[in-house]
Amino acid sequence: MREAIIAPVNYCSSCGEPVSKQVPPGDDRERFVCSACATIHYENPKIVTCCVPVFEDRVLLCRRAIEPRRGLWTLPGGFLETGETVFNGAARETWEEARARVDGDGLYTVFNLPHISQIYMFFRARVVGGRYGIGEETLETRLFREPEIPWDELAFPVISKTLAHYFRDRPSGVFPVRVEDIIIQGAVGTPPMPAGQDGGTRR
Amino acid sequence: MREAIIAPVNYCSSCGEPVSKQVPPGDDRERFVCSACATIHYENPKIVTCCVPVFEDRVLLCRRAIEPRRGLWTLPGGFLETGETVFNGAARETWEEARARVDGDGLYTVFNLPHISQIYMFFRARVVGGRYGIGEETLETRLFREPEIPWDELAFPVISKTLAHYFRDRPSGVFPVRVEDIIIQGAVGTPPMPAGQDGGTRR
Repeated sequence: MREAIIAPVNYCSSCGEPVSKQVPPGDDRERFVCSACATIHYENPKIVTCCVPVFEDRVLLCRRAIEPRRGLWTLPGGFLETGETVFNGAARETWEEARARVDGDGLYTVFNLPHISQIYMFFRARVVGGRYGIGEETLETRLFREPEIPWDELAFPVISKTLAHYFRDRPSGVFPVRVEDIIIQGAVGTPPMPAGQDGGTRR
Repeated sequence: MREAIIAPVNYCSSCGEPVSKQVPPGDDRERFVCSACATIHYENPKIVTCCVPVFEDRVLLCRRAIEPRRGLWTLPGGFLETGETVFNGAARETWEEARARVDGDGLYTVFNLPHISQIYMFFRARVVGGRYGIGEETLETRLFREPEIPWDELAFPVISKTLAHYFRDRPSGVFPVRVEDIIIQGAVGTPPMPAGQDGGTRR
């Protein structure tokens, strides 16, 4: 996951003329509309797609080499790219960050973070051959048994919540898909914050 | 669901100077990068969020008043907006298109459409009081029993697949979350097509 710079929208990306905030005809919310060519520039939430990579009874975590939360442990993940399925994006990020190939075992947790307009989706996955390494955004990669999980050094609430669900579900072998909201008081409905302001607008 | 005009990216939305396609340092794919202020303009898939609105043994469908697929039947849905949870977006679209308030019963189907960089998410929901109406994008709204579903007049494959799952699961009362890919041969990995070219880039 890299940090995302949220650039201000001042100009039309199509024709280069200034935009202004207007409610387009037939719409009910303000959009950036071009003063010259009338193009409407929509902004939509982004998907962050992640894996819970498992080998035998252990889970693969990465220690972050980049801000935010440098030095803390995370599950591999990042922004879904155009042309990808959600699982393929999670598998790509697992390769990039943990140099592990994975086979998917299905969608597991979904988190809404409306204050930063991000939707997180975690997939359970098996690490092929138990092989892994260290990607460019990673300081260290390690397989953890449940009692070894560094709960106080996890990078984000979505990581600790997903791991807690995983270890609670594992004895039964049943892993229902869970959808949860992470609501930051007073922030719901506001547009995404500039990077760094809340530690959450990461790429 | 409205049609989305995919405008070309020629200029920096931040400073108005021309952009060019480059692989930024530390990245591995081409992005639009500003020649003047170096802002990187990322493009990411969009979420289309929808409801399966149910009242007693019937499902609420809308006949589309807008292109694409004008005149065909759909489940209410549309692009997730910034600041929304995925279910709240589905409930908003259900109000806008079918004038129905809904209580959610959970995530049900997820479809990857990588050729147009859209991820569809359908939620099961109950229509409060069995009350509904006709939104601006809708010609007609109606509750259908299973034998009445107009299978040959459904607007999109994601609609018919979700309804087929729903009626197959309903006797058991168990509705597992399903994730499926809708792959258009030869199109995977390509950027989103201009509106109208494939009937799929809708807003």
